[in-house]
Amino acid sequence: MRSSPGSDRYAVSSADVASASKRLAGIARRTPLLESPLLNERLGVRVLVKAESLQLTGSFKFRGAYNTIAQLDDVARRAGVIAYSSGNHAQGVAAAAAALEVRATIVMPSDAPRIKIDHTRAWGAEVVLYHRAREDREAVGAEIARRTGATLVRPYDEPQVIAGQGTVGLEIMEQADEARVRPAAVVVPCGGGGLTSGIALALAERWPDTQVFTAEPEGFDDTARSLAAGSRLAAQPGAASICDALLAPMPGQLTFPILLGLGVRGLAVSEEAVKEAVALAFRYLKLVVEPGGAAALAALVDGSNRWGDEAVVCVCSGGNVDPGLYAALLRDRAT
Amino acid sequence: MRSSPGSDRYAVSSADVASASKRLAGIARRTPLLESPLLNERLGVRVLVKAESLQLTGSFKFRGAYNTIAQLDDVARRAGVIAYSSGNHAQGVAAAAAALEVRATIVMPSDAPRIKIDHTRAWGAEVVLYHRAREDREAVGAEIARRTGATLVRPYDEPQVIAGQGTVGLEIMEQADEARVRPAAVVVPCGGGGLTSGIALALAERWPDTQVFTAEPEGFDDTARSLAAGSRLAAQPGAASICDALLAPMPGQLTFPILLGLGVRGLAVSEEAVKEAVALAFRYLKLVVEPGGAAALAALVDGSNRWGDEAVVCVCSGGNVDPGLYAALLRDRAT
Repeated sequence: MRSSPGSDRYAVSSADVASASKRLAGIARRTPLLESPLLNERLGVRVLVKAESLQLTGSFKFRGAYNTIAQLDDVARRAGVIAYSSGNHAQGVAAAAAALEVRATIVMPSDAPRIKIDHTRAWGAEVVLYHRAREDREAVGAEIARRTGATLVRPYDEPQVIAGQGTVGLEIMEQADEARVRPAAVVVPCGGGGLTSGIALALAERWPDTQVFTAEPEGFDDTARSLAAGSRLAAQPGAASICDALLAPMPGQLTFPILLGLGVRGLAVSEEAVKEAVALAFRYLKLVVEPGGAAALAALVDGSNRWGDEAVVCVCSGGNVDPGLYAALLRDRAT
Repeated sequence: MRSSPGSDRYAVSSADVASASKRLAGIARRTPLLESPLLNERLGVRVLVKAESLQLTGSFKFRGAYNTIAQLDDVARRAGVIAYSSGNHAQGVAAAAAALEVRATIVMPSDAPRIKIDHTRAWGAEVVLYHRAREDREAVGAEIARRTGATLVRPYDEPQVIAGQGTVGLEIMEQADEARVRPAAVVVPCGGGGLTSGIALALAERWPDTQVFTAEPEGFDDTARSLAAGSRLAAQPGAASICDALLAPMPGQLTFPILLGLGVRGLAVSEEAVKEAVALAFRYLKLVVEPGGAAALAALVDGSNRWGDEAVVCVCSGGNVDPGLYAALLRDRAT
């Protein structure tokens, strides 16, 4: 049983998503919803791919970052913004700050993919590196924020970030309507849950019968286990994954109640399935998708179609992958 | 000095392009016109990329094939169609025939990229292989056509194919208008000239001040040399190129007068520039572009900006590249 999405029981509402959509019009890209008959045949299910890898900065993160920074007052804008991120949120904040002429400092793990670090700097942000195992990124970020007065833009536990990501859901509904399809499910790669909770909020009222799923790598399926348990659980200690964008340690404080309240369900995908999904996006869609961005598509590659003749939307959430890793991954699968 | 594109001096008119656009509405994809601020910075020029690699079948060829086959009468449709192609036209004809429930036979060189052969078969076409050096593809195709009564769909010297490809030009104009940009130039990868001549026809009336360029690999710059000479010249004998989609031996009989009459100019690009363009499309646009499809972008990578502050549209015409080749290409450039 779902509660009304219009209620104020969550930190963010479907009205916030609608406002974000107005704010982002003409700024963020309306990324295409792609379909490949050959891919459908290969997977045994009709798949529509929302190609957020084609978003400005190569991931959906630009949406939430822009929606948040655009709402800061003049004093806050002058003090700048700060973010901690493994890479996609970093680029999103850096690009949004640049568009709004706000100074940005980004705290990144020293082992983040080099393409993400390089591009964050190219957007004009100052990058501060930290050690993922030895330091706490939240502490590093909070310390700089205290010192400079910069506003911390959290990657997912931030109402206006969630609202911005939710605009992906509004576009999916518009584009599916244009294609005269009503999908049975929408599957979303999930780290801290910002994108999934935003999409779930966007869909709840108009598409009440569409099931929203999170897709997470095995070992980092804390959201799936938390949803099953009804309370927030942490990821497996010591787990590792190729999906560097999905390594959040636990569902968010703001995102989890939304996911739980709106009946979202969780799926876990294997490393092998992720690699196969990256290769399928290359072959059939001509999209460069990073491992974490391919997690939703990975949930479909085992051929166990649970949706019969109905369509499924998979969000491909990002495309920021190092060329060396991508090449290795394709070569392993070249036939 | 240009002649009026509305005149009937060419085998195909801008009115044919407009009709093709109606025929393809809701069938072919309106591919996005993408821009990356970081790519602009890297190239020192503002570039808008028309991502035809995201077209159904992974290249623009679907447009012309569908526009042609859709206009066959019932008798011709029952006898089927035949095409000879190194790969992208093959897939375009196969997919268009499948959509229109027409039988297709495709004559392909035995050394065509495997992904192109596999996908042509996956669309349901019968594939007949021939030896590129020892056999003449036109003769092989004509012989099968004589035997079966199938209609030959030529890759570029076919009025309704040219008209179909021209719809890329109509979309570029619409999308640039939406983005409030009037580009100084449109650069188009060129084999036999079907895509470029269609685009030139589409643009001539409404964008008379925009210069259309062909981009060809060195050694296969027969169009550039022919345009400079004012008559059709053949490609260098024995030339080789990584751009398997652009190996036409000479400008087309129907396409060349259009290119010449509408003032199109030719550019030649090096193998190195093509590889760099493929890597740039990966890094900044998250697009899988095949070598031939990247020839237009390759014309910009040397940093010799001839357009100042004005914008340039590059058509990325296809994305059908073998994963092994693509991986090798990325790995060479991974830093």
